[in-house]
This record gives sequence, C-alpha cells and structure tokens, in this order.
Amino acid sequence: MNDVEAPLHAIREVVARALAEDLTPLGDITAALLPLDSDVIARLVPRQDGVLAGRRCADESFAQVDTDTKVSWAADDGQEVSTGDVIATVTGRLSSVLTAERTALNLLGHLSGVATLTRRYVRATHGQARIRDTRKTTPGLRSLEKAAVRAGGGVNHRGNLSDGILLKDNHLAGIGIGEAVRRARLRWPGRTVEVECDTIDQVRQALDAAADLVLLDNMSPAEVADAVGLVGKALLVEVSGGVTLDSVRAYAEAGADLISVGAITHSAPILDIGLDL
Amino acid sequence: MNDVEAPLHAIREVVARALAEDLTPLGDITAALLPLDSDVIARLVPRQDGVLAGRRCADESFAQVDTDTKVSWAADDGQEVSTGDVIATVTGRLSSVLTAERTALNLLGHLSGVATLTRRYVRATHGQARIRDTRKTTPGLRSLEKAAVRAGGGVNHRGNLSDGILLKDNHLAGIGIGEAVRRARLRWPGRTVEVECDTIDQVRQALDAAADLVLLDNMSPAEVADAVGLVGKALLVEVSGGVTLDSVRAYAEAGADLISVGAITHSAPILDIGLDL
Amino acid sequence: MNDVEAPLHAIREVVARALAEDLTPLGDITAALLPLDSDVIARLVPRQDGVLAGRRCADESFAQVDTDTKVSWAADDGQEVSTGDVIATVTGRLSSVLTAERTALNLLGHLSGVATLTRRYVRATHGQARIRDTRKTTPGLRSLEKAAVRAGGGVNHRGNLSDGILLKDNHLAGIGIGEAVRRARLRWPGRTVEVECDTIDQVRQALDAAADLVLLDNMSPAEVADAVGLVGKALLVEVSGGVTLDSVRAYAEAGADLISVGAITHSAPILDIGLDL
Amino acid sequence: MNDVEAPLHAIREVVARALAEDLTPLGDITAALLPLDSDVIARLVPRQDGVLAGRRCADESFAQVDTDTKVSWAADDGQEVSTGDVIATVTGRLSSVLTAERTALNLLGHLSGVATLTRRYVRATHGQARIRDTRKTTPGLRSLEKAAVRAGGGVNHRGNLSDGILLKDNHLAGIGIGEAVRRARLRWPGRTVEVECDTIDQVRQALDAAADLVLLDNMSPAEVADAVGLVGKALLVEVSGGVTLDSVRAYAEAGADLISVGAITHSAPILDIGLDL
Amino acid sequence: MNDVEAPLHAIREVVARALAEDLTPLGDITAALLPLDSDVIARLVPRQDGVLAGRRCADESFAQVDTDTKVSWAADDGQEVSTGDVIATVTGRLSSVLTAERTALNLLGHLSGVATLTRRYVRATHGQARIRDTRKTTPGLRSLEKAAVRAGGGVNHRGNLSDGILLKDNHLAGIGIGEAVRRARLRWPGRTVEVECDTIDQVRQALDAAADLVLLDNMSPAEVADAVGLVGKALLVEVSGGVTLDSVRAYAEAGADLISVGAITHSAPILDIGLDL
Amino acid sequence: MNDVEAPLHAIREVVARALAEDLTPLGDITAALLPLDSDVIARLVPRQDGVLAGRRCADESFAQVDTDTKVSWAADDGQEVSTGDVIATVTGRLSSVLTAERTALNLLGHLSGVATLTRRYVRATHGQARIRDTRKTTPGLRSLEKAAVRAGGGVNHRGNLSDGILLKDNHLAGIGIGEAVRRARLRWPGRTVEVECDTIDQVRQALDAAADLVLLDNMSPAEVADAVGLVGKALLVEVSGGVTLDSVRAYAEAGADLISVGAITHSAPILDIGLDL
Repeated sequence: MNDVEAPLHAIREVVARALAEDLTPLGDITAALLPLDSDVIARLVPRQDGVLAGRRCADESFAQVDTDTKVSWAADDGQEVSTGDVIATVTGRLSSVLTAERTALNLLGHLSGVATLTRRYVRATHGQARIRDTRKTTPGLRSLEKAAVRAGGGVNHRGNLSDGILLKDNHLAGIGIGEAVRRARLRWPGRTVEVECDTIDQVRQALDAAADLVLLDNMSPAEVADAVGLVGKALLVEVSGGVTLDSVRAYAEAGADLISVGAITHSAPILDIGLDL
Repeated sequence: MNDVEAPLHAIREVVARALAEDLTPLGDITAALLPLDSDVIARLVPRQDGVLAGRRCADESFAQVDTDTKVSWAADDGQEVSTGDVIATVTGRLSSVLTAERTALNLLGHLSGVATLTRRYVRATHGQARIRDTRKTTPGLRSLEKAAVRAGGGVNHRGNLSDGILLKDNHLAGIGIGEAVRRARLRWPGRTVEVECDTIDQVRQALDAAADLVLLDNMSPAEVADAVGLVGKALLVEVSGGVTLDSVRAYAEAGADLISVGAITHSAPILDIGLDL
Repeated sequence: MNDVEAPLHAIREVVARALAEDLTPLGDITAALLPLDSDVIARLVPRQDGVLAGRRCADESFAQVDTDTKVSWAADDGQEVSTGDVIATVTGRLSSVLTAERTALNLLGHLSGVATLTRRYVRATHGQARIRDTRKTTPGLRSLEKAAVRAGGGVNHRGNLSDGILLKDNHLAGIGIGEAVRRARLRWPGRTVEVECDTIDQVRQALDAAADLVLLDNMSPAEVADAVGLVGKALLVEVSGGVTLDSVRAYAEAGADLISVGAITHSAPILDIGLDL
Repeated sequence: MNDVEAPLHAIREVVARALAEDLTPLGDITAALLPLDSDVIARLVPRQDGVLAGRRCADESFAQVDTDTKVSWAADDGQEVSTGDVIATVTGRLSSVLTAERTALNLLGHLSGVATLTRRYVRATHGQARIRDTRKTTPGLRSLEKAAVRAGGGVNHRGNLSDGILLKDNHLAGIGIGEAVRRARLRWPGRTVEVECDTIDQVRQALDAAADLVLLDNMSPAEVADAVGLVGKALLVEVSGGVTLDSVRAYAEAGADLISVGAITHSAPILDIGLDL
Repeated sequence: MNDVEAPLHAIREVVARALAEDLTPLGDITAALLPLDSDVIARLVPRQDGVLAGRRCADESFAQVDTDTKVSWAADDGQEVSTGDVIATVTGRLSSVLTAERTALNLLGHLSGVATLTRRYVRATHGQARIRDTRKTTPGLRSLEKAAVRAGGGVNHRGNLSDGILLKDNHLAGIGIGEAVRRARLRWPGRTVEVECDTIDQVRQALDAAADLVLLDNMSPAEVADAVGLVGKALLVEVSGGVTLDSVRAYAEAGADLISVGAITHSAPILDIGLDL
Repeated sequence: MNDVEAPLHAIREVVARALAEDLTPLGDITAALLPLDSDVIARLVPRQDGVLAGRRCADESFAQVDTDTKVSWAADDGQEVSTGDVIATVTGRLSSVLTAERTALNLLGHLSGVATLTRRYVRATHGQARIRDTRKTTPGLRSLEKAAVRAGGGVNHRGNLSDGILLKDNHLAGIGIGEAVRRARLRWPGRTVEVECDTIDQVRQALDAAADLVLLDNMSPAEVADAVGLVGKALLVEVSGGVTLDSVRAYAEAGADLISVGAITHSAPILDIGLDL
C-alpha cells in the first residue's frame, strides 16, 4: 500500500463482495456464450478528464475472476488523466475480461470520481487550506473512499467514531465545552479533541479549554476570519457545513486550516471510464 | 418486504458492515463521555425536497446499536418529502442515538438520493417511457440501490450478470446478432434476450432474430424514432447511453419503452436529511 | 469459467466452508501421524459410469489444503466417464492429499451425481424437449448444482426468486391470470413471465395475457398435447410435477418445450468416485 | 437443542446463506406483486410417509424473512409422519410465507429425507446393530445432516477429521497396524482409535494393538461373523462399504455392532413435503 | 454501550465465533444426554478477588445458545469482586446453561483477568500517572480487551495502526524526528503525533518538532524525570518498555503522564470465575 | 500442516481478522510516511528463552500485507529458542514489513508463550505423565492454541464439546455415573467417555461402568495414587484442577496418565519476540 491506496485486505473484501453480487448464482450467462479460447487486449480509457483512483480494485476484480488476466498500468492513483488516454491495458480471455469489466469499472469510476471532485476542491483553495473528508461515506466503502480522497489531494478526518473526539452540540448540551473537553482529556488522553462551534463565544470556550481543533459549523467566511483571528496558531481551525466549489476559496482565504466537505464522498459523480477492446 | 424495499437479509448485512466500519475497535469514543441514563426524542428531517428511500436501513441501524431505540415513521419509502418535514421520530438513549446517527443517515441520504434522482427522470418522461437502472451500482449496495430506484418510480434492469442476456458489441463480434440470439435461446431458454444496437441495421437483425428487447446505444431521438417505427410492438425498445434530464423527454417521445440511466445509481447526490434533537 | 462451471467465487466459498467443517479445530488428526516427506501420486477413478461435474471444486479442495498439490485432468465437466477410468491424477504430499480427499470427493460425487441424473433425463427425451432444473436445490450449493445440471445437458430455470416471474396458484388467487401478468409487465418490464396452469382454461388465459411461458403442473401427457395444440409457437410450454424417467419421454413427445425436474437436484444419488493411491 | 437437532448457530448460518442465495439481489419479484396486507394460514403437509427432521430450519427460514410469521408444530423431529398429515401450521403475511416457502421446504425435505432413509436402515437391522453415518455429507450441511441421522434413529460416526482417528489402508501403508495404533495412542491419548481392516489377519492385528474399533471394509456377512467371533467383546466391530437395504440385515445378524452407510447422507432422496394454503 | 464496554457488534461476532468453535459440528454431545425439561438456577462466582469485565459477553453467550436463558447481574464491569461473591444468577434449561458455560466463562475470565491486572498497575501508580494499553492484544479480541483495560481503570492507546501516528526508530531512520513530524502534520493534520525516544536528545528534537507526545522507551525512572523536566507541560510524556508492577510507581513518581504496559493485554492470567449450580 | 501446526484455513482466517482489526479503515498511517522503494532485511529475535510456535501465522501475516515479503526460518515450531537467536529473516519493503510486524509478533508471541509454558509443565513431569490442554482457550484461537500445546510437547484434550463425552458433576446429578455412561454408550457409540470424579467411590463407579477415562478433579497426589491403584490399567487416569508447576511432578509420580492444565492456554504470558532491522 502506498499512501493513496486503501489497505489490501479492504480491497479484497470489497471486490469479492461486488463479484458475488454480480455473478450469483449462474455467473455471467452472456459471456458463457463466448468461446473460451478467445483472447483479448483491452484498454481502460477515461471518457472525461479527472484524477485516477482505485487501480488496485481493478487489478483485484480482474484477478478474482480469472488469475490469468493481467493488467498493466500507464497511470498511478492520484494522477490526472485525460479523455482518451490509455490508462491501462488488460490482457486475458475475452469472457473473463467481460465478466470482470463492470465490477472493475464501477469501483474505478466511483473512486476516481471521489478523487476528481476532491481535486477540484483542493484546486479551488489555491493552497491556502487543506480539504478534509467526513464520515459521510458510502457504507461498506469507507476505507476505499478515504484513500481516494488522499489520491485527490485531500486529507482524512476521523476514520471512524473510534479514532478521535468530536464534540458536537448534542454532546455539549448540559455540560458545556470546558467540562466536555476536560472529560475527554481524562478519558482519552493523547487523542485529538475537536469542538464544533456555532458562535465565536464557543470558539473562545474551546480555546480556553485547550481543544486541539475547532470545527466552525455553518459560519460565513467573515465569521471564520474572526475565529481565526481569535485563536491564532493555538489550535487548528476547520470549517464545515455546506461549503461549495464556489465558496471554498473564500473560506480558505479567511484563514481556515482545514475545510471538510461531505460532498466529495457522498455526492461525487463517477468519473466515466470505459473498457475498449 | 414490500416492492420498494430491499430484502431484509441484505439490509441487515449492509448495516452490520457499516456499523463495524464506524465503531471498530473502540466504539464511539465521544458518545462514551455522555451519561448513560439520558434519554432523547429526535426527529429525522429532510433539508431538501425529495423522495424517501431506505427507511428499514435506518430502523436497522438504530436497532443494531441498541435494541431499545425505537423509530416511528411518518412517511413511506417512495413518498415525496419536503424540507422541514418530520419524517420520523427516534426515541432512545442519547448516546445510542448519536452513535447510530451517521450510519442511519448515510444510508437514508444515499438511497433517498437515488430515489430522488430517479423520480426526476421519471417525471421528465411525462409517463411516455419507463426509467430503468443499470448494473452501474455502488459495489456492495446493489440490492439496496435497485430498491431505491423502484421507490423513485423506476424499474429494474438486470439484477446481475446471471439473470438476463444482454448481447453487447463485444459479445457479437465475430458471430453476428442472429447466431448470438440463437445460441442464447438454446443455452438459456425462457430467459429474456436483449441486443445492444448501434445502427438501424442491427435493430433489423435483432428483430429478425426475434430478440425480446433492443438496447439502442447512443442514438439520437430521431434514430430512436426510426427504430421504434421499424419494430412496432414486436419487441421492447430501450434507450441507453448518456441520457440526461434534458434529453430524456425527447427519447420518451420518440417512442422508447424503456430508458436506462446509469447516473441514477452511480452519480446521484445524497438527499440531505438531518437528525434534530 | 466455461458454461458448465460455476463462478469461481462460489466454488472458493463452498470449498473453504467444507474444509473448515471437516478440519476444525484440530485438523486431520489421523494424517498427522504420517511422515511429512512422503509424496504420492493418486488417481481419481469412478466406480460407476456417469457424467463428470465439479472438477474445479476438486482442484480447489486440494489447493486450499496445500498449494503444492497438483491435479491433472483427463476428462472435462460434462463428459461421460466409465467405471475404472483414470479421470485425474493428483500429485502431492501424502498427508495433504488424504486430508483433502473427502472434501474433493464429496463435491465431485455430488455434482457428478446431479450431472449424471440430468443426462439420463436428457437422454430419455430423445431430443424432443429440454430438461430444466428447479429451485429445489441443496441450500448453499445452488450455484454449483445449477452448473452441474448444465454439465449434464440440462438448462437452468430461474437462478432464484429475483431473476424471473413465476405466477403460481397462490399468487393468482383473487386477481386472476390476466391481471397478474399485467401487473408483472408493469412492475418488471423486460423480464420473463411464466404462469403455472392446472387446466387448459388457464393456459388459454395465459395465452391471452401474452405470458412468455406456461408451466403445466401435474398434467397428463394428453393434456399437455392439448395445451401445446392450443398455444402453438406463441409461447414456451413447460411441464412440471412428478415427471419421472419413465414418463419423461411421453411428455417430450407431447410437444413440451421444457420439462422441469426437481429430482435432478434434490434427489440425485452421488456418482461414486474414489481416490486410488 | 435437543439431541436430534443441530446446534442453533449452524441452523442460523445455513438458513441465512440459503435465503441470500434465493433472494439476491432483488428479492422475490413475484411475491412483490401481492398486496402486503394479505394474511394467510398455511399447512405443511407431507406427500409421502417418512420421518420428520429439520423443524427448526423451517422456523428459522420463515422468521428470517419476516419476524411476524409464526410456525406451530404438530410433530417433532424424529417422529414418523404420514401422507396428508398436517405437521405444522404457518401464519403470517401471504407474501412473506411464499418468499420463505422454498427455503424452508428445501431444508425440511432434504433433512427429512436423510432421517427417513436412516430409519429404513435402522428398521432393517431389527435392532441387532446400530446404523452410523459417515463423513460423506453434503458440503456445508454436515451439522444438520448428522442431526437428521440421529432423528432417523442412527448414530454419528466422526463429526470430522479432527475428532477421532480412523486408520485406513493409505495411512497404514509402510508402518503396519501395530505401529500406527501405537503412534495414535501416543499422539492423541484418550481418543478413539479405529482401524480399517480388509482381512481377518488385519482384524487380529488391530485386536493385538488394542484398537477401540475395527472397520470391516467390503467384507461379506460371513467374513464379518468370523471377525466378530475373533474379537468378541474386546472392541467394537463396524461394517462399511456398499451396505444396502437388502444386505444390512445380514450384516447385523453377523454380529456387527455398527454399520456405517454413506448413502443415508449422500444419496437420500428428499421427503416430499408441501405447503398448502 | 457504556464507556467500559466494547461495542455490541464486536461482542456478537466474538461470541458467535467462539460458540461455532465449541459446538461444530455435533453440538454439545454430553449435554445431549440430559433431559430437555430440566431447569436450573446457576450462579457466577469468582474464585479469586479481581475486577469484573465482559458481562455482556456472558449475556450474549447464554442468549445465543438459547434465547430463553436469562442472566441477572449483581455487579458491573469495572467493579471489584471478591472470592465467593455471587456476581450473577443464570436461569434456564440445564442443558443450555451447561453448553454455553465454557464460552461465557472463557470470555469473562479472560477479560476480567485483563481488567484485574490493569487495576493492579493503576493502583501501583498511586494516581500519579495513567496506565495505557498497547497494540499487543490478542488477535481477534482487540475491541474487547481495550474495553477491559478501561474497566480496569486504564486508558487506551491507539486502537490500531490507523488512528494515530507513532514514529518509532524504524520510521525515523534516515529522515530524523523533525522531518518525520513535519511530514506527519502535512499528511495527517489534526491527528496526534507521538515520537518514540531512546535518548534525551531525541526528546529535545521531538519538543522542537512540536510533537504531541513522546514515548520514552526503556529509560530508567531517572532518565524519565530528566525528560519530564525538559518538556514541562509542552507535551505528554509516556513511558514504555518493560515496566513491571514493581517499577511502575517509580516511573509514575518520575512525572510520566502515561505508562503503557503490554503485559496487561498480552500476559494477563485469567480471573478464575466459576458457575455453580 | 505437520502435527504441531494448525490447519491452514484456520491460520488464514485468524490473520485476516487480525489485520483487518489493525488496519481499518485507513491502513498504517505511520508507515504511509515512508518511501515505498525502501527495502529491508529484518530478523525475528527472541528476547527470552522459550519454545517456538506459530511460524505459519507470521508467514501469513507478512504475506497478506504484501505478497512480496519473504520469510526464511532458522527454527521450527516446537523447537527451543534462546535469547538473541535469529530465528527468521524477513525480506521486503520497509513499510510492508512494519505494517505486518505487530500482527505477526502478537501471534508468534502468544502461541510461543503457550508452547513455552506447556514445555515447562512437560519437563516438570519428568516423562511420567502427559500434559493435556483444556477447552479453556482464548475465544477465536482454539485451533491455533491447541497446535501450540502440541508444539510444546503436550497433547490435546477435546477439541470442542462435539468430539468427546465428559460427564461432570452437573451432568451426573440425578442419574448417577452408571446410568450416564450407559446412555453415552448408547447415544454415541465408538466415542471416548470420560467421567469427572471427586471421590474414590466415584472412580469405582466409573470403573464399573467401563468408562474410558476418569478425570480426578481437585484431588491430592495421595488420593490420585489411590485411584490409580484402584483402576490399574483398566482406564486412563487424568488429573485436573489447580495443578501448578510446583505440584505437577507429584501428580505425575502418583501415577496419573494425563494431567490437564487450563493455565497453559488461558494464562500463558507471551514469549517476547522482537523484530530487529
């Protein structure tokens, strides 16, 4: 695994599940009409410009259907690809290649779609902030989508509920920020504590409580600039809530360190990639 | 299961996987800071207008985290919901509700997103054609997404490679439509045979071969109208390939019986639904 | 996968489950008494004449126990084999071969048993009808048994409840054939609709409703001939219900296109195949 | 679990797998045409006389599809049932009952078939020997089939390769019975050691080696009587290899303690049980 | 889940696996000899003083074997229990209780053993430092063991390799602490960065690099005191490496914030708990 | 598999689960900072003297993370290893080796710990009795721990509840030893029957009932000697209950054939093995 790829065990499981889903119980009844001895050289070709992600998912899809199918890549995860590029060559039995095609393309298209949309947000910040994902991922694909975000140039927020403390309004009700952060430090020392803030006053409380990050929820760029002015370098400032490709630059220029965008995982259209024989 | 819901076993598996993904290994370390005896009444409220799908996924998410959490619905899968509607009430322990929230919302948002986009396509046909999905679904979620398409008013194409014959150009190369259909009838009698056609001549061959459907790939509405004129009621005419919300009506008016749209599953943005305490 | 083999993922899963079943928790405690450095060449030999099916299941059984075991086949799935033929040669460590033996033979014997009984029915029709399987398969083995039916020369009915509509008496009660077929066409356009008929009058209704197939349940050959006379080539006629090796020819001669036989999967005795060292 | 039932975890897993197999990915598309509010009282009725087994598999099948379906039994596993008996009443939604029907009946029919054939062998011994199963079970169903054998009045041989030592000719080659038993006692003290014997001389060696059982393979009843005469009560005598319903009594009368029959699991036809509405 | 319990999905999976392990394929063949109608009231009683952990594992073990078995607790996870205390009462069928007993006790004993040893370390620090676990947990039980550590009064280090950065000597070779921390901040902003240090000079580098924690590996208490003096409150100081019950107090008094001890998970003897009828 | 190794399928499953546990969802975020092209030769080196077990678990851990990592062993399972020995050499990408390190070491350390403690007990008997394990194993690891016991020179008791009859006081209550053994012989002929005895009188009853073994529970060595004197060679005598390294020799000298020790699996500290680069 390199740092823009998901762990191999996660890829194997997702592909096995996807193939079972597509081939149960009779297999590919159309490909079954084809001669077994017909070999093919096929090419993976984007129909749109974008950022590649999910190469090993495609490898795994072809290999799980037929260990004799070979894939040779001309691009890496994280690399920008253009319409018409031959990004990979697939060699193997015609029927095996066609049977695995849709599973490979579904994963490649979805993950490249995530990477591509992430890259657009990253670009839109002009290097003045980092784009983070959220836990708003597709159930069963978190590991792969978070890797695709990294391939797109984004960074990962919490992997899940177990790897960081994020105190939202519902957690704070009744105890207040100071007490909540104190409890978090006590119970989970050595872990990042982030506090969701709706107002500058809450940002001040989070600062006083020595949180590690504040998550400014649904604030305007101007409010974000105020918050950044208040906290300085004492903690990281993250912006969240309805940030769009149009508004992201303003938030970045307002001084946010991190901007988290649910849409890059939950609403990314696929990158259309085809298999040409 | 009613006819717009996925089978229960599929829902149970997807939810179990999603919760494991979100709670491994330490559980919800933020909710762990909350008192156990704090109960809550929460409401599921759409932030956008759309079509609801995935109710039982939400039920299952809350129940798998804590069997004492109860969900009471004010809307059904397939029903149109509006911004601000209270579509469900969730009653239970505060920490249990917060722990399950994201998994429930990820599924509800994604599936309602699929249903909502499907409904938009269905509306755009003005009842002159049926909208079908494709196999371009999210790996691991096919069963749920295909149910969401039905909730949106669409109909399902093949469930997978095993439940229908679809002869594409790559299958036809070297043998021709007539021979391919003949083989399919011989090998898989009693099953639907659909033939992908790029030209009117191929449509004629499919008609001669007595296929059940033709899939007109990337044709213009005018070409579709020609094909419809040719085949009459002898077989079903399906249109596919890059159909958009703008172009779908023209294809419907050209006489297509079915219009298949990959985007309703592979590129549907979520329907934003929130949990309010 | 060729067209008489199950998809590889299904074979892998069944074999893994079978080996876990046979080797948990201590492994093969008898083979553990053998020296590790003892190699063997073994032969798979039928003790009865029959039709081979399940070769890749045997391959997978030996390989999952020990990747160094090699199997070389002298016969293909679907081929007739005779008592005493050497159908395969297995080379590897003695203890590994003995540990995998029973799992390999259980699968090979069961699936070849299905193929063999299927072939007997196929033969008995003298080419005048096709033999189809049913959903009366062994739980957990549907994919493999349906492939064995194909190896035997039969064809597959529905893979499962999700890939075709079969309206039985219990579905028709209260709505009637015409309305039921109409609903099916509306809800599931482009899919095969088959109607179970107990009487000629029902066949007429199915014909009027333009169903794709009728399933004549428990009719005599004479009644089947009447039905065939009625429908002509307008739809496929399938016979079902208690057809035996004795009666199958009469049904075939009565003009049925398809004859479905539950016994070929639910009551096929094994084909006895042994491993000789 | 009583002593003729499989452990509950095994039943749950088999049923879950069978339902997934039958309902993936679209569910029961025929039952989806039925009204949801239609309730039904159905009856499980054998079409043949036989021995019931697998009741909890049927319970589990109906419950996993719809927790509201209730099954009430009038017979127990192991009990003889007659054609036309109402052995159980199933109450629930029509569509849920029909969706679960085939899975429930496949399991009930297969396991009752195993129990029924076992009972026939048991009867044929006239109480002079016990009928044992083998490891020749259907992959994935060992636990259930072994329980069905007990329901039929038989007893279980090894559960798997890990729970008893059975020295066959291939294990004995090169070391001899005495040495093999000695090694087995040393490596696995406190476990049963059974020795497969093809000749009286081997029986004598097994006796000298103080094995716990001898497995007389493919001997005639007369040879078995000789072996029994030789060993007396010193160890248990088991007969195996091609025993049929015709020959089993002769083996029992020859004095065998145990007669193992692969056919009761690998070649038992189903007991035909139907669901009547 | 409260904050000393593992997430329910993890408990369910571990128990299901453990029961399958203990009951495959024939179930509890000894309990099968017991009458089914014999009920029992049993008591869980520690044979040693210690700290309870894993109550829900016991609940789940009894329930998965027989949903009618009820467990009523007189103690909570995290509570100290004494030899002879009745910590729970189990009511149900005798055979069901005996079948589940070992699985319940194995989990309860192991997890209470972890909690008990953790509590001893916690006590030994006299409140001057926190005891942390490591990733040296038993494969398959991490989630449960980490909860048991919390029940014992300890706190959790990383849940796994994915939820925090810990730069060890092997990661630092060739790049140095400053550069490694810089890369970590860039790649994974908002996450805790801990640096393993073998020397005071490395501690200084980690301080300069603004790491969040230093992990002092195999230092003496005096060296730890030096390091603490150096860093003050600028970052958290964790001690690791061969800390024993004898030495832990000295490290705590040297000013370490956290002391991580692998032995509490990898070498904790069980707490002996019995089931008395 | 040799006779001191667990079956391969069990090892594969445990390792896959352990890696998923350690790498979900983001993989190894620290190793992700390392260059991908950096190769390494690492050595597995014990920090303590002990007995090696679990080699194939380590192989599998490295291979599942990266198929290019190679492990070459200088010691076998069951062999004694000394502090500082290079027992294996691991060659591969630096990041892959570090990612797999902890999983490999956790399994190797735990299983070698079991083997090492077993060996100490074996040694302490001076060859006068055999050490047996119990069902007090770590949930999910039974197959591996029982193999480690064999590597340590011990022998295995029951693999699980399904492979032998052990009548304990709770089973005997109300029916008595004679009747219980009779039932066991009837229900499960050809299986080992062991009777737990608390008194000499019960031993006499077990002897009269012709049990295969007696399990002397919590008796003193003198009482054991009495029991051994009573039974002679008629059945095997096993001692159980609180046997320690101090007391085991006395039990062995008292004439017990088998001494079962729960501590070798439930309370074995790990053997500390490190990975040196």
